[in-house]
Amino acid sequence: MFQVVRNSPKPLGDQLVEEVTRLIESGRLPEGFRLPSVRQLARRANVSAYTVTTAFQRLGAKGLIQARPGSGYFVARIRRQPVAARVEMGPSMTLDPVLGFARSLLEQENVVVPAGSGFLPASWLAEAIPPSILSRFGRSGAAVESASVQGDPRLRELLAERLRLASVPVAAQSLIITFGASHAFDLIATTMLAAGDAVLVEDPGYFVLPMQLKAKGLRVIPVPRLADGTDLEALEAAAKLHRPRMFFAQTLLHNPTGTSASAAKCHGILKIAERHNFLVTEDHVYTDLASPNMVSLAQIDELQRVIYVGSFTKVLGPGLRIGFIATRAELLQPLIEAKMLGVLSGSAVCEFVLREVLDGGKYRRHVERLRDRIAKARAAAARELEDAGLILESGAGEGIFLWARIPTRVDPDRLALDAQAHGVLLAKGALFSPTAQYRDCLRFNVAYAADPMLTQFLSAHTGRTGAAARLSME
Amino acid sequence: MFQVVRNSPKPLGDQLVEEVTRLIESGRLPEGFRLPSVRQLARRANVSAYTVTTAFQRLGAKGLIQARPGSGYFVARIRRQPVAARVEMGPSMTLDPVLGFARSLLEQENVVVPAGSGFLPASWLAEAIPPSILSRFGRSGAAVESASVQGDPRLRELLAERLRLASVPVAAQSLIITFGASHAFDLIATTMLAAGDAVLVEDPGYFVLPMQLKAKGLRVIPVPRLADGTDLEALEAAAKLHRPRMFFAQTLLHNPTGTSASAAKCHGILKIAERHNFLVTEDHVYTDLASPNMVSLAQIDELQRVIYVGSFTKVLGPGLRIGFIATRAELLQPLIEAKMLGVLSGSAVCEFVLREVLDGGKYRRHVERLRDRIAKARAAAARELEDAGLILESGAGEGIFLWARIPTRVDPDRLALDAQAHGVLLAKGALFSPTAQYRDCLRFNVAYAADPMLTQFLSAHTGRTGAAARLSME
Repeated sequence: MFQVVRNSPKPLGDQLVEEVTRLIESGRLPEGFRLPSVRQLARRANVSAYTVTTAFQRLGAKGLIQARPGSGYFVARIRRQPVAARVEMGPSMTLDPVLGFARSLLEQENVVVPAGSGFLPASWLAEAIPPSILSRFGRSGAAVESASVQGDPRLRELLAERLRLASVPVAAQSLIITFGASHAFDLIATTMLAAGDAVLVEDPGYFVLPMQLKAKGLRVIPVPRLADGTDLEALEAAAKLHRPRMFFAQTLLHNPTGTSASAAKCHGILKIAERHNFLVTEDHVYTDLASPNMVSLAQIDELQRVIYVGSFTKVLGPGLRIGFIATRAELLQPLIEAKMLGVLSGSAVCEFVLREVLDGGKYRRHVERLRDRIAKARAAAARELEDAGLILESGAGEGIFLWARIPTRVDPDRLALDAQAHGVLLAKGALFSPTAQYRDCLRFNVAYAADPMLTQFLSAHTGRTGAAARLSME
Repeated sequence: MFQVVRNSPKPLGDQLVEEVTRLIESGRLPEGFRLPSVRQLARRANVSAYTVTTAFQRLGAKGLIQARPGSGYFVARIRRQPVAARVEMGPSMTLDPVLGFARSLLEQENVVVPAGSGFLPASWLAEAIPPSILSRFGRSGAAVESASVQGDPRLRELLAERLRLASVPVAAQSLIITFGASHAFDLIATTMLAAGDAVLVEDPGYFVLPMQLKAKGLRVIPVPRLADGTDLEALEAAAKLHRPRMFFAQTLLHNPTGTSASAAKCHGILKIAERHNFLVTEDHVYTDLASPNMVSLAQIDELQRVIYVGSFTKVLGPGLRIGFIATRAELLQPLIEAKMLGVLSGSAVCEFVLREVLDGGKYRRHVERLRDRIAKARAAAARELEDAGLILESGAGEGIFLWARIPTRVDPDRLALDAQAHGVLLAKGALFSPTAQYRDCLRFNVAYAADPMLTQFLSAHTGRTGAAARLSME
């Protein structure tokens, strides 16, 4: 009893906690049993007294043992033997296939090369949150103090200032903090749209959005997205036919194609929106990864008809879950109410971390470095994917996505399944579009797309063989 | 130019940043203007070079200035002069009055004595998150790594273990992490209820819940709550008449009355639920503040008909926003889908902090200390409120709430308004009940209810005068 393995990778304290838990839960140490003293146990297990004390504290926290002052530690009364749950189930047994895929993109379990991921590698983001923030976190009381419903006022001030510098006129009071962009879309749909309304989305486009909208009973109409932005003729035709209430557009570093809309296209979208009187939600989550001189709908429109959605999950990390909505003031109160009715308030902890990052002077440098790194990875990835026999659809451009077509002789479903078996996560074109025309496209994350494991896998399927293939093209 | 005030409470660096921002935004420092060097400016403003360097970094982060290597700092090209937002508005101009009150409870602006608050003082919670967690946070990658949709598996394991020790049979896989209890209720209503369904709530009861349910088109039927739990006859009658799909019950340390349901009442509720085939959502957010031997619905029912909602916002702080749902496995997948469609995933940052707290060995001691402190405050508050001429409805009991009646001659609306003018936040009975019978009740937070400012205010309105009043009673 109470033995630990010294050269195990598992910390000695963890071993002790597990050993004692097992002994208690199996009934070998009964209720009321007096444990050896800290000193005795330390000697017997050949560990420090500190390790034993900490282990006892953790066992106490679990309710397994209790201290009786002056007489030592005893096995606590467990109200009943722990009961195993009746049913165990796999993590995504009945999950909708598209949401199941979204989940695998986020969680990346059993994935070696997450080529289809929508997020940058953790190692590229780690520097963004400097350690000095942590010491301030302790003093800040962010966790324990009362939370702001609309979002921390100082954070909103920083965000508004950034928007104003990008020529989007907005006050901190017209911003509401959300748990990421998805939460923002949910609040917008809840407050500004009603079941049965027609809404326009881009085709191809971010694939969780249409599901969010359909779940609210909205009629989702796809509008073709071209290399320089929305197909304006199709937009006008859809507006005439469906009388939509809103268009969800991602003008900048579009997901999945990686393209950005031209200034003329932005202008065109707004003219059509005005003519047919619909609102436009601009998904601007990649703005910090784009060159600073790109035009946005929110800039031209000055938030009269445009609702602006931003997020930091792409640039700081998916674990932070902070996004925001900027809108004209009349639309704000319903958003605040919807946020309260859904989640009551935001997380002061996440808001504190973001505020410190933005105010800390190092954010801009992080973003610049990230842009450089992405640009280099993008060039390498484009070259490798072409070498592997794919046809790039995105052209030059910026951002984390490359959109590429596989040769028609390759079956995309089979390719993706086979990739999965090899630990390669691919994002199939069919996910991003209800039409068949993107069936043989794939979305690649440039951070992973030059991985030899991926390109060898792709080459094998297309019949090309890497560098040899490039030579044969010349 | 560039002057700072040395004995101002505002840090010198902040002053510098604000001064330069003002000069640039007003146009006094034009684009391309070369700023003094760090050394010059440090001398001129009589601050350290470090202060100037940090200020320059922050100005750089704001996009106001940029460094040209080797030649110094220059005012950046601002794409356009910042534009003031068109409309400014107060924070809760048109917010629904009940949500507006919920907001003031959370944010406590202009409040000196938050007597009606639902949260414990930050100073009572601060010790719960030990500084050692912070150093681990930096190494954890919690912010930058991919997020789990259902919630961190290790955190779910800890939560399931706690539930099993409280005799609720559940596996980590049957838990889903939420952004607090409100988010849990929202997900439950979204997945298990449909517009038009009848749902039962407690009267009096937590006041945001009925609003959440009504916003989803549900018919909300109040069922009287007595000192020992639900009025079973009324529950049975409501079940017969309205054929509800779900009953939302808070058996433990009920908000607002502070009472707990007896074991017999818990049993009775479940028998009626079985007879009339409705589900029960048990709101157990105060469980850690109750004696460990209290009975819960989830325990008796073993999560067959009961959906269990827990939260840590009450014990660790409102800024953390972590709650969870425990349910039988078949109900889980729709909850996961609804969570994804609403917010995509949880916050790995918040989940990391909670996991470390629960696993760290100090949580139980924190909770025990909190319980002691609450018990003492509760006794003192009960005495003071009675002295001030109020009639307690809660009796002995535990937890943070006391429910008290004001003399009938005092008008509760006037009292609350007058209190507000004195910086005292009162929670009126009318908030917690659609019926008139609790109009002259108030919910008090025991942490604030013995405050002399409150009791003097109340005594003045009831015509009693504190200690003198107590003497006159004897």
